Amino acid sequence: MCEVEQVSVENLRLRLQKRIDSKTKPPGSLGILEDLALKMGLILKTDRPKISNPQILVFAADHGVTEEGTSAFPSEVTAQMVLNFLSGGAAINVFCEQNGIGLGVVNIGVKGSLESINGLVNQPVGYGTSNFCRESAMSIQQLDQAMNLGASLVSERYDQNCNVIGFGEMGIGNTTSAAALMSFYLDLEPQDCVGRGTGIDDGGLKRKEMALERARELHINKTQPKEILAAVGGFEIAGIVGAMLKAKDLGMIILVDGFIASAAALAAFMIEPSSKDNMIFCHVSAEKAHCLLLDKLDVKPILDLKLRLGEGTGVAVALPLLKSAILFLENMASFESAGVSDAL
Amino acid sequence: MCEVEQVSVENLRLRLQKRIDSKTKPPGSLGILEDLALKMGLILKTDRPKISNPQILVFAADHGVTEEGTSAFPSEVTAQMVLNFLSGGAAINVFCEQNGIGLGVVNIGVKGSLESINGLVNQPVGYGTSNFCRESAMSIQQLDQAMNLGASLVSERYDQNCNVIGFGEMGIGNTTSAAALMSFYLDLEPQDCVGRGTGIDDGGLKRKEMALERARELHINKTQPKEILAAVGGFEIAGIVGAMLKAKDLGMIILVDGFIASAAALAAFMIEPSSKDNMIFCHVSAEKAHCLLLDKLDVKPILDLKLRLGEGTGVAVALPLLKSAILFLENMASFESAGVSDAL
Repeated sequence: MCEVEQVSVENLRLRLQKRIDSKTKPPGSLGILEDLALKMGLILKTDRPKISNPQILVFAADHGVTEEGTSAFPSEVTAQMVLNFLSGGAAINVFCEQNGIGLGVVNIGVKGSLESINGLVNQPVGYGTSNFCRESAMSIQQLDQAMNLGASLVSERYDQNCNVIGFGEMGIGNTTSAAALMSFYLDLEPQDCVGRGTGIDDGGLKRKEMALERARELHINKTQPKEILAAVGGFEIAGIVGAMLKAKDLGMIILVDGFIASAAALAAFMIEPSSKDNMIFCHVSAEKAHCLLLDKLDVKPILDLKLRLGEGTGVAVALPLLKSAILFLENMASFESAGVSDAL
Repeated sequence: MCEVEQVSVENLRLRLQKRIDSKTKPPGSLGILEDLALKMGLILKTDRPKISNPQILVFAADHGVTEEGTSAFPSEVTAQMVLNFLSGGAAINVFCEQNGIGLGVVNIGVKGSLESINGLVNQPVGYGTSNFCRESAMSIQQLDQAMNLGASLVSERYDQNCNVIGFGEMGIGNTTSAAALMSFYLDLEPQDCVGRGTGIDDGGLKRKEMALERARELHINKTQPKEILAAVGGFEIAGIVGAMLKAKDLGMIILVDGFIASAAALAAFMIEPSSKDNMIFCHVSAEKAHCLLLDKLDVKPILDLKLRLGEGTGVAVALPLLKSAILFLENMASFESAGVSDAL
């Protein structure tokens, strides 16, 4: 950022803080809602931020690493859940409808082929990734294709006046992929990155850890962020990374969901550190490693509801709090206008 | 509870849990939202709970103990904020409007007289309490009057088909009263119960602690829950206690806000322990002692947004999450209906 831009950001920050502090409440007493109002104003570059046409994109894909027995559910559940999203029966449907959020469903690499159903973005990059314990999960060409798809879907929504976008995922096996990304990018031991996902038992947890150990040996020469993403990522994760980077380019607010979306956020940060400026972390998952991942990113989530479902549910249920932050800034009276005395 | 009732509660609990577990998600993966769905079902005695006409009552009153220099704001702010509530400019107005919550404003004992303004329940029990470092904050007759007013306002709302009710407060000085109640009921040292309230400095914090020490000496013979409430409580706190006990009687869901409302919940619990069964604690305040108070009540709040404003704001911003809990139970597909495979 050049010096002139820096001055204008600081000026905006001061104006926002002044508006926040003029409201009829003790300074700072709206806590995280004040932080959110400030952050959304800075991202949208205005002291009167508004949420416009909020959207969630759910990317679905399968993972070859499930061959290692790393998930409590069979791979076919990914495609079954895509159909459930399209017929409106999943948790994310319910919460999006409740909170006025548009929902897009993307088959970016489910195992087997899906029929083109109304409402589905059906553009698979492959039919599940390869098992990253044996080879690269995907090629660099597939990675680019997945990232480009994510980016183009964000651009479409931006053109429809959307300025707040969140990302969800569905992919049996994807906590293993997310754990691998975390382990590679942050150089953490596999045991610190794995968790029970959808509810794996002790044996499965041990198999996840071993899968990560094998992946670290196999892909030891991969050092660039995108190389690592291709080696142990997933199509849905790559799609989210591309989408986040585009949303940053377009000056949008990026809402980050749970563990897998946060691994995608980490990848986006590794590729382009400034992308973090536009991210709001909505929820800390019950997945064990998520808390550590958020700490490493030096971010605080809004909610801790012990969710561990993915799909973007943490984003969807957090949206009313973002609206609360916008609305207090917009609609509360000031000390002056309400004739309320200031502190002694 | 007699044995027959106990069996029917356990039967309902099983039916609710079965409905929750049939939904297309890994068991337990909606975390606290599942706990809330179960709890609301048990309170409303149905496996298909619905939120009907949610309401917040904000009770406002002044506190004689402010003579001791315990607050960062002057007492006249209480009445000024009542006017702000009535003209729609306070945080609680904004959040109630956002989330479809009816708001009632009650002058139950503001210092000086307030004109009867449209929308105000103007039934003061007194013009601020007495300084509880020197005498009882209120008489037992005043306590009963305040509790009866709270109860009758809840009954009115119940008659308007309201089954979920939250309580807020406005009262310069009331964190000192809440801290005193906590210290008396839980036999805790004053220093563990005081905090910075609306933003008092180190000197003020010390004065709060000393006020509590003097109160403990002066009222050492008070041992009954209602005696203690009259000795160191506030009119707004007593109103909330009466309201909570009535809401429990009527089988309503009681939404508990921050530190002061939780002190009222503690008083209600001391008077009638079963009242806790109907309470949902919405938010842990940034007020230092609140976390300890919740621990002592053995309850977990839904949100931790570092709010420290009162007014019922923690309840108002939590309501969408309660709705999410109701809606997933009502509207999500089951594994069977969606044709999704269960765990391996």
